[in-house]
Amino acid sequence: MKILLSIILILLSPALLAVEEWHTPDNENLVYMQLNTGTVVLELAPFMAPKHVAQFKALVKEGFYDGLDFYRVIDGFVAQGGDVTEQKVSQHNQQLKAEFSRVTPQDSDFMLVQSPDFMAPETGFLHGFPAGREPVSKQEWLLHCPGTVAMARSTEADSATSDFYIVIGQATRHLDRNMSSFGRVIYGMPAIQALQRAELNNASGVIDDKDKRSKILSIKLATDIPQLQRLKLQVQTQQSEAVQQRLASARALESEFFHFKGNGNIDVCYYQLKSRLVE
Amino acid sequence: MKILLSIILILLSPALLAVEEWHTPDNENLVYMQLNTGTVVLELAPFMAPKHVAQFKALVKEGFYDGLDFYRVIDGFVAQGGDVTEQKVSQHNQQLKAEFSRVTPQDSDFMLVQSPDFMAPETGFLHGFPAGREPVSKQEWLLHCPGTVAMARSTEADSATSDFYIVIGQATRHLDRNMSSFGRVIYGMPAIQALQRAELNNASGVIDDKDKRSKILSIKLATDIPQLQRLKLQVQTQQSEAVQQRLASARALESEFFHFKGNGNIDVCYYQLKSRLVE
Repeated sequence: MKILLSIILILLSPALLAVEEWHTPDNENLVYMQLNTGTVVLELAPFMAPKHVAQFKALVKEGFYDGLDFYRVIDGFVAQGGDVTEQKVSQHNQQLKAEFSRVTPQDSDFMLVQSPDFMAPETGFLHGFPAGREPVSKQEWLLHCPGTVAMARSTEADSATSDFYIVIGQATRHLDRNMSSFGRVIYGMPAIQALQRAELNNASGVIDDKDKRSKILSIKLATDIPQLQRLKLQVQTQQSEAVQQRLASARALESEFFHFKGNGNIDVCYYQLKSRLVE
Repeated sequence: MKILLSIILILLSPALLAVEEWHTPDNENLVYMQLNTGTVVLELAPFMAPKHVAQFKALVKEGFYDGLDFYRVIDGFVAQGGDVTEQKVSQHNQQLKAEFSRVTPQDSDFMLVQSPDFMAPETGFLHGFPAGREPVSKQEWLLHCPGTVAMARSTEADSATSDFYIVIGQATRHLDRNMSSFGRVIYGMPAIQALQRAELNNASGVIDDKDKRSKILSIKLATDIPQLQRLKLQVQTQQSEAVQQRLASARALESEFFHFKGNGNIDVCYYQLKSRLVE
């Protein structure tokens, strides 16, 4: 009886019930960019920006971005790609209604990490993406952290079409709730960091000489790439024990390497969930 | 009489008394790195870490770093350079006493930007460097922002010698008051961002294959470089009106581009002072 109880307890123990640290992201939400600097994989966020994701995927599907470039690249800020000429015609290149945030749904998997955050009442993870939440207005949104992908726009909220940017410097948190973030880089950030920048004195960041711009050779949906050519990528699962331990350790700075133990606050943009390649 | 008063008022007006936006940094504090990815200029911070700066300059002067490499480069974290073999002999390669912070001197030019900051009671600028300050303990220190240069060390506080790192990702603020920061990149951050990274699955970040590492061709003191070969660099002056206006604008997000106006907080690591090249 005692042995049986032990077995039941072991079977019910948190370690066995725990969520696995790594999971394979859904290919439906993955996009492969071939740049002259390397391969980049984006994970899209249809849960937050369904219209932006649908339009981006439609543009990718028709090859809209192939042969275009990163024409505005400001070190410490963003790398913006797309059609700077605004000449390319596509039925999918339509003005999009802003998707800056969403009303927190009943079944939101938002996982609180930091409250209050510097720029938001709460920050944490949402479907593995760094996210913010405001309990009063019941809004949640994706944070502008390094690797965040969002659609560029002009002054009007509903003016985004096809040009997108990737955050390449210190988090541009002033763009949170101001831009439609629709993805994140889960592989190949070094290829993004290697993109040709605008010159130091070029405030607009637009690289006038087309030949100097880094090239988008192609962007493809993962589902349009033969399985053998896809990377075997996994991403960390926000609810996993390993992630919880990493966050707890980051709060406490318990390693004896740290002589000053901080104040317990965490910057979610620094402690983003990791990716790995599996054999 | 009225005209005379007007002239006196104009002469005394803040615009005329104001500090110039740009100044030329002292060559005594500048160091030029020639990497296989480009030219980088560091501004050193003897006011904060005099022993680290003195040892770094002595090592640079004797050519200690020439031919070494960036052997540990983790995307989103730091690029660490120096002698991974620990074989290179120099009388200047001595263990340094930690210079994590200093007691705020009477004549400190610390300029408060944000209080409280997420990770410190106060953040702002100190001699143009992003800095933190704690009024209670009267300590001030340099922040770990993108572009911050600090000496690497082992677990013990007083163990740094010659290997250094540069922050290349989201600010590693957990290293504030834990490492001796002694400089910042004022030119060539794109060349740092182009450094070869360790592979995704390489947790230590040490690039084992020496041939894959980005190279330090040379590091030289600006004062050892002929004047005509130096860059004509200027940096923004923290007390200038232009900087004040930029910070005020960042707090208010007053441009109509911003539909959500934020909460008035500023991340000093994002709003670092700028550099420019002059003719």
